[in-house]
Amino acid sequence: MYRRDLVVRTRGRSFTELTPLVSEVIAAAQVQEGMCHVFVPHTSASLLFGENADPSVRGDLERFMERLVPDGDPAYEHDAEGPDDMPAHIRTVLTQSSAMLPVSRGRPGLGTWQGLYLWEHRHAPHERHVVISVW
Amino acid sequence: MYRRDLVVRTRGRSFTELTPLVSEVIAAAQVQEGMCHVFVPHTSASLLFGENADPSVRGDLERFMERLVPDGDPAYEHDAEGPDDMPAHIRTVLTQSSAMLPVSRGRPGLGTWQGLYLWEHRHAPHERHVVISVW
Amino acid sequence: MYRRDLVVRTRGRSFTELTPLVSEVIAAAQVQEGMCHVFVPHTSASLLFGENADPSVRGDLERFMERLVPDGDPAYEHDAEGPDDMPAHIRTVLTQSSAMLPVSRGRPGLGTWQGLYLWEHRHAPHERHVVISVW
Repeated sequence: MYRRDLVVRTRGRSFTELTPLVSEVIAAAQVQEGMCHVFVPHTSASLLFGENADPSVRGDLERFMERLVPDGDPAYEHDAEGPDDMPAHIRTVLTQSSAMLPVSRGRPGLGTWQGLYLWEHRHAPHERHVVISVW
Repeated sequence: MYRRDLVVRTRGRSFTELTPLVSEVIAAAQVQEGMCHVFVPHTSASLLFGENADPSVRGDLERFMERLVPDGDPAYEHDAEGPDDMPAHIRTVLTQSSAMLPVSRGRPGLGTWQGLYLWEHRHAPHERHVVISVW
Repeated sequence: MYRRDLVVRTRGRSFTELTPLVSEVIAAAQVQEGMCHVFVPHTSASLLFGENADPSVRGDLERFMERLVPDGDPAYEHDAEGPDDMPAHIRTVLTQSSAMLPVSRGRPGLGTWQGLYLWEHRHAPHERHVVISVW
């Protein structure tokens, strides 16, 4: 098993595509056929497999989540770090902290229109750890 | 590691139980105790572990999602492929592209009332790839 | 591969932290660097990676889900086991039945503020199986 713990700098609430990073780690692991696991050890940023062609998909996803889990909802008791604190935890629970994909011919076995994204849910930029395991 | 890339034909927005397919692949892999990973390399169809006894559960799930992520919502910018285009991406993000289950005594280690389903989110029938890995 | 099938008694709709249990199984498996998979073979209880410091986060999560997936919604056809029957299935689909995390230095490779929780979605106490695999 090959493992890398990497740091991704986010620019606040937004998506960062991780597919190139995952490709690099798989290449370094020299695995042709196997599995790749990606883990985010945070509770206010998460992972998703999403459409990678049209940026408006990510815009619509963000708008959908802002409507479903509004910032500053008076129903939240937990707001120690601000109006986006509890929404970030809920968004993480509704998406993924852990993602797994096949490795095929030494590359991520994703679909043509599929990418792996880190979704930063806090408004402020953060340094996020991404733990990638390949076997 | 044993891997199969299979094609499942869907009849449009609906559920297809994958448990029999997964059982076949596990049997072919001749693994008694291990892990099985199922991956859908698409962004408008997804996986879920769901109740397998009463079909009304799937009906209710579908109605819940149609209400939560309505087709043709004017808030969506991305609608190149129609009113069910962006909802299909959101539904995929709210469920799973990747599912993993234990293999126990040469069979899927699921609960008695638990099945693995492919959820087609587009209204038109599609051919969907399902990548099953067993080790 | 090391596997344990454990029973967790829940006190009805609530969260039970599984991190100590996962730590014990990893220690028993004597794996230093590897992977750990946790599976819940039920369709009305599920898993999530959540904030482990402030209990109000779990309270807010529960309130959010009760609003999103209300008990006794007249839209549900499936209510054989009561007004929390179908909501429990929907909550399970919106969260996880399967969770995977890295094992690092013989311990769960979670973030400082991150814990793995079992979310019981039924109001009555239940005995829930949790299948933990380590390799």
